[in-house]
Amino acid sequence: MTDSLRIIPLGGVGEIGKNMMAIEQGNDIVVVDAGLMFPDEEMLGIDLVIPDISYLKSKKDKVRAILLTHAHEDHMGALPYVLRDFLHVPVYGTKLTLGLMRTKLREHRLDQKVDAREITPGTPFQIGPFECDSYAVCHSIPDAVGLTIETAYGTVVHSGDWKFDHTPVDGRQTDFARLSAIAAKGVLLLMSDSTRAEVAGYTPSERHVGELFDTIMARAQGRVITTTFASNISRIKQIIEIAAVWGRRTAIVGRSMDNYTRTARELGFFNLPEGALIHPKEIDKVPDGELCIITTGSQGEPTSALSRMALGDHRHVQVKEGDTVVMSATPIPGNEELVSRTVDNLFKLGAEVIYDPGVRPHVSGHASQEELKLLLNILRPKYFVPIHGEYRMLVRHARLSIDLGVAPDNAFVITNGDVLEISDRGAKIGEKVASGVVYVDGLGVGDVSQSVMRDRWSIGSDGIFLVVITIDRQTGQVVAGPDIVTKGFVPEEDAADIVDRTRQKILDGLADTQSGEHLAEVATIRDTIHDTVTSYLYERTKRRPMVLPVIMQV
Amino acid sequence: MTDSLRIIPLGGVGEIGKNMMAIEQGNDIVVVDAGLMFPDEEMLGIDLVIPDISYLKSKKDKVRAILLTHAHEDHMGALPYVLRDFLHVPVYGTKLTLGLMRTKLREHRLDQKVDAREITPGTPFQIGPFECDSYAVCHSIPDAVGLTIETAYGTVVHSGDWKFDHTPVDGRQTDFARLSAIAAKGVLLLMSDSTRAEVAGYTPSERHVGELFDTIMARAQGRVITTTFASNISRIKQIIEIAAVWGRRTAIVGRSMDNYTRTARELGFFNLPEGALIHPKEIDKVPDGELCIITTGSQGEPTSALSRMALGDHRHVQVKEGDTVVMSATPIPGNEELVSRTVDNLFKLGAEVIYDPGVRPHVSGHASQEELKLLLNILRPKYFVPIHGEYRMLVRHARLSIDLGVAPDNAFVITNGDVLEISDRGAKIGEKVASGVVYVDGLGVGDVSQSVMRDRWSIGSDGIFLVVITIDRQTGQVVAGPDIVTKGFVPEEDAADIVDRTRQKILDGLADTQSGEHLAEVATIRDTIHDTVTSYLYERTKRRPMVLPVIMQV
Repeated sequence: MTDSLRIIPLGGVGEIGKNMMAIEQGNDIVVVDAGLMFPDEEMLGIDLVIPDISYLKSKKDKVRAILLTHAHEDHMGALPYVLRDFLHVPVYGTKLTLGLMRTKLREHRLDQKVDAREITPGTPFQIGPFECDSYAVCHSIPDAVGLTIETAYGTVVHSGDWKFDHTPVDGRQTDFARLSAIAAKGVLLLMSDSTRAEVAGYTPSERHVGELFDTIMARAQGRVITTTFASNISRIKQIIEIAAVWGRRTAIVGRSMDNYTRTARELGFFNLPEGALIHPKEIDKVPDGELCIITTGSQGEPTSALSRMALGDHRHVQVKEGDTVVMSATPIPGNEELVSRTVDNLFKLGAEVIYDPGVRPHVSGHASQEELKLLLNILRPKYFVPIHGEYRMLVRHARLSIDLGVAPDNAFVITNGDVLEISDRGAKIGEKVASGVVYVDGLGVGDVSQSVMRDRWSIGSDGIFLVVITIDRQTGQVVAGPDIVTKGFVPEEDAADIVDRTRQKILDGLADTQSGEHLAEVATIRDTIHDTVTSYLYERTKRRPMVLPVIMQV
Repeated sequence: MTDSLRIIPLGGVGEIGKNMMAIEQGNDIVVVDAGLMFPDEEMLGIDLVIPDISYLKSKKDKVRAILLTHAHEDHMGALPYVLRDFLHVPVYGTKLTLGLMRTKLREHRLDQKVDAREITPGTPFQIGPFECDSYAVCHSIPDAVGLTIETAYGTVVHSGDWKFDHTPVDGRQTDFARLSAIAAKGVLLLMSDSTRAEVAGYTPSERHVGELFDTIMARAQGRVITTTFASNISRIKQIIEIAAVWGRRTAIVGRSMDNYTRTARELGFFNLPEGALIHPKEIDKVPDGELCIITTGSQGEPTSALSRMALGDHRHVQVKEGDTVVMSATPIPGNEELVSRTVDNLFKLGAEVIYDPGVRPHVSGHASQEELKLLLNILRPKYFVPIHGEYRMLVRHARLSIDLGVAPDNAFVITNGDVLEISDRGAKIGEKVASGVVYVDGLGVGDVSQSVMRDRWSIGSDGIFLVVITIDRQTGQVVAGPDIVTKGFVPEEDAADIVDRTRQKILDGLADTQSGEHLAEVATIRDTIHDTVTSYLYERTKRRPMVLPVIMQV
């Protein structure tokens, strides 16, 4: 075990979200990122999904550090839950990443307890046996980095989330010189972001967004209301600056966007001209043609500011004819319908909405195929592991790497829980470790299991049908009930007849059971009721509500 | 009321799906289409959604006919339910449309009872006071038509679903000559398909799909497995013919596709070269390079043939390395994730999958902006109503019509239940009529109400927590229980402690209630239990399961 380097994805490999990668060598483990995932619609009632870290818990004393590549939720959002077990482990990140991490940890009262250590690209730091460093990358949040980790077997490069942007709006380019220096020493393993491995060509520069906004602001007569990701601090800054050029002052509306920009401002990442920003309360005092509003809700989230505006239900902003609403974001797969609903509602209020894929001012923060190729060509790694993507994206990215010269046997498509073992003798897939999803619901972490989810889905689909009966312990006679309570099955006004007939069926069924010499056992009564009711209801309605018999004994 | 023509959309206007339009003049109503919609994920346990036809029921004696434009589910799928009240009304459609309708009605034992009347494009037919006719249109199912209805106020044109395809694979073009003849007499009102009103340019010809399949078949070494919509009979026929050119014989796998193609063959719409088709049972007898499989599952539907193949769970087809799987369809909005899951699973089995938007052989059956403009320009209607689309699409289509010369006051964006009244004095929006959704679940139509859906969502999200207690009618003392049953809340192993403490809280709460002189009423006991339990569970878990107290008296 100790004579190899072990690469163990615990999240984000074979899926989008909850990114987490463990790198293990002998008695030392470093963890890159600790992200969350938002639940899909099948996960009824779930708030968040985080990686299963039981593998790390089983090797608690070996974990030396958590390194953060940037401050997005899918890279940092699981930290408050992971730190419950790993508060003794230092967390490394750049200035803004740590600032935003503290804001997040404050809600969990962990911001004072975490051992946060700031890193600067180009300044190496030591973690156990690993000499580590970071390099600047462009992404849709400032101060993002890729990581290098010197191991006993060679240099491992973890790309983080990245794109090449030759004209970034914050002037901070992906650091080609540093990449070349890394390449010069030889790269053992590259792990690289596959989010857009299916997309041909180059991802356009963030500057392109500015050009589109410039045209929009020039044309709009009334207010410009725009929505984007709350964490896209460079985008928000850019919009405010362009608005100012066109004589518009900007209000930021939405709690999460307020949080991000406030932290960014405190840390010097969000410097704006005097008077460019106004408070949302002042919106009504500014003439329409001199106003810009930036708000949350780019994914159509039902409780977001924009969704509420679109329903005419927002405290500060009433959308009206003459407003231009700009969707400066792409719907994340799965959110298309929510976004469309918001756009429809805005149209109904008479607003002009700029949302068409070809027209809306938005570019991705992830590298497309030509950029992925360029990185592979600069670094020329011996081994390649595509990360951050669903399975098909990983396959596409692995094929690209083979086209670019990685030996076909050295490109590994692995998924969460797989272990890639690299030694001087080569690389191979080892035995799997525990991995998977942990559901966060309310206060609880991991206390909603698959079986609970199945129950929720089952009762959610056909409702519940409850039969309560009280029997005499001695005689086995029914002394009260059957009482029936049903929810989510048929409307109350229609239920009366079904309930009456079911009650009779139960009594008939029990009479049969009790007709022998012996008193029926409670379990038998329960089964009889369950089967009688289930089959009667299915016959009558072709539905299968969850039937729950409760037997009380007095 | 009788001195106007009333246009009343009952479905499909302001949404995609369940298309249905009523056209009313004096004592006569004709209905165009009776479609269904598939439920979205929020509609737990619902099988189908159909239009609310209470308006038609309230004027039952006035309904003269149902006209079908084509045999897609979103235009014809509600017919079995609508006919329950309107079996006395004749249904008009072209040969294939009626053939597929009969297949559908057979499942509901209505195929012998329906009064079906075949129409032929260019041969007028009379319905009450309306002279009607149809004209051929290109769409993704053969034998589709648009309709003309001569009213007392002028000609109404209903486009159905359509595109202009100058090189359709079945040789049946949209009939320009007929459109020009209609235009020559003047068009009072055009209602036109808005599905792709957001898309610039022209929709490519179905022939383009053939060219792409030709390349795929030429390159593939192993089997070609392709999926498309079961109703896309021309597409299926085209694939079989191209496969035959490349020496491949084709098996059709999937019940619904089998049904569609069988009916089409019986009616002469699906003539194939001898030996081109084989039975799915023969798949294993044909060498891989000589085999083509066409199957259902283009939307990733979990029970479809392709989804089962992708999970290695299909009776006749095991996907393997060397197979080329072709997605000859676009994911319908909302299905993206299901389709991606299928593609991922196919990659895991080692298949090559052709699914990229730029590469997959698929074209839409709906007209894009330039085609919409061309139809408007040919027909030059006085009034325009965009149909078949979500609100923003209707707005976009209405704007196009205004660009093309329709007077801005004569382009009406209306939605389900709105009434457009046209008379010699002009057109205006009248009083709304009843409209909306009816849920079909199991055997029942309309017996799942909004309140049932809310209950399902609520218990589905946080589970259910049931408290059963038996009290003595005379003394008010608890004689059994509280018993607690909980589902979908927390796993059983974690529930023990919560259940114990909740039980104690209930007994404490009841003790307080009973401490006075009077026995508490059942309603009071129920409320006490409900409130005690709800607040305790929320405090402890931050969740709100549905709490159901059941009080038994003995």
